[in-house]
Amino acid sequence: MQIAVLIFDRFTALDAVGPYEILSRAPGAEPVFVAERTGPVRNDSGSLALVAEKTLAEVPAPDLVIVPGGPGQSDQMENEALLGWLRSVDATSTWTTSVCTGSLLLAAAGLLKGRRATSHWLALEALERFGVEPTGERVVLDGKYVTAAGVSSGIDMGLTLLGRIAGDDAARSVQLLTEYDPRPPYDCGSPEKAPAALVEEWRARSRHITR
Amino acid sequence: MQIAVLIFDRFTALDAVGPYEILSRAPGAEPVFVAERTGPVRNDSGSLALVAEKTLAEVPAPDLVIVPGGPGQSDQMENEALLGWLRSVDATSTWTTSVCTGSLLLAAAGLLKGRRATSHWLALEALERFGVEPTGERVVLDGKYVTAAGVSSGIDMGLTLLGRIAGDDAARSVQLLTEYDPRPPYDCGSPEKAPAALVEEWRARSRHITR
Repeated sequence: MQIAVLIFDRFTALDAVGPYEILSRAPGAEPVFVAERTGPVRNDSGSLALVAEKTLAEVPAPDLVIVPGGPGQSDQMENEALLGWLRSVDATSTWTTSVCTGSLLLAAAGLLKGRRATSHWLALEALERFGVEPTGERVVLDGKYVTAAGVSSGIDMGLTLLGRIAGDDAARSVQLLTEYDPRPPYDCGSPEKAPAALVEEWRARSRHITR
Repeated sequence: MQIAVLIFDRFTALDAVGPYEILSRAPGAEPVFVAERTGPVRNDSGSLALVAEKTLAEVPAPDLVIVPGGPGQSDQMENEALLGWLRSVDATSTWTTSVCTGSLLLAAAGLLKGRRATSHWLALEALERFGVEPTGERVVLDGKYVTAAGVSSGIDMGLTLLGRIAGDDAARSVQLLTEYDPRPPYDCGSPEKAPAALVEEWRARSRHITR
C-alpha cells in the first residue's frame, strides 16, 4: 500500500506528520513524501524542512493520498501541475484524504463537488464556495474521500482510516503504541468550546484566508 | 527564546513534530532542529527525513531543549557527544524536555536522577534503573524538567509548557488554531485502557527495548 504524502512550501508540519505517523504503521505501508521537486520543503514558519523523496511524476498511482494544509495552500490553488496530479492520482486511489486546508486543494481540483467534507474551522466557508457541503465534524468520510479538520485532527483521521484499512485491532495497537490517550490541559480546541472573543479575534485576523 | 529540537537516526517523527508544532507558535520562538551533523536525519521507519539545520556545537545555549524518542534512542545511550551536549545545554536551559523514550537519554546524561519523570509506557522500568522515579502520568513537571509519555503525548506537553511560558491565553489560542479537540475513534491509548492481552503482547515483543 503506497501512501503518498504531498508537501509544498509553507505546509503545516503536523498536518502531514500526524496521519503519516499513524498510517505508516499499517501492515505493508510504503509511505513516500512527494512534491513538485525532490529535496527539502519548508513549513509555514520556515524553521522545519521535510525531505520530498519523489517528484509528483514519480508517484503516479499511490493507493492512499494525504494532502496537508497550511498557509502555503493558498499559493497552490491555481497550480495546475499540483491540481492535475491530484486529479490523476485520484482516478486510481483507494483513499483520497486531507487535513486542515488541504481539503481546499482537493476542492480546487474538483474532487469534492457535491460531497460532505471538512477543513480548518476558519476555512469552512471557503470550502462551501467549491460546491462542497462543509460539516463541523472532526473527521468526515464520504466514499473514498476522508477529510479532517484543523492541524491535529489528522491523527484522529489516521486512526479512523487505519481501522478501515487494517481492522480495529491493528488500529488499537497503533493507538496504544503511540500512547494516544489525549489530555489537553485546556478545553479550547474548537470554535464551539473556545471563548467567543477568541474565536472572533481569529476570524478577524484570518479574513485574508477565507476571503 | 531558542527552542532546540534534537534529532538522531531512527527518531520517531511525531515525538519531535508534536511539541514543535505547538511551541514554535510561542511569541518570539526561534526553533531549530539540531543533530550531530547537519542535513537529513531519517526516522524510525526510514521513510521520513527531517533536516537538521545546525550541529550540536552550533547550538550551545538554547532556552528550551526537546528530546524525542524512538527506536534509535538505544543507539545514543552511550554517545558521549550527544550526552555531553545534553549536560552542557541543560546547565543554562530554562526548560529541558523529552517525549517518549527521549527521557532515557536525559536519564543517561544524569539529568533526571532523583526526579519524577515519565516515558513511553514500555520504557518506564528502564527509566527506573537510572535512579528516576517513573510515573504513569502523561506529562510530568519536576522543576525545569518536563517529560511526556509515548509519541502523541508531546502535544499535551507542548500546550502545558506553552501555558507556563506564554500564559494560558496564548496556549488556548494555539489549541484553537491547531484545532486540538481530540476524538480518538478507539479508547485504547494507554496500558490501563487497552485490553490486557494487547498490552501483554507488546510487552513481550518489546522485551529487547526495556531489558
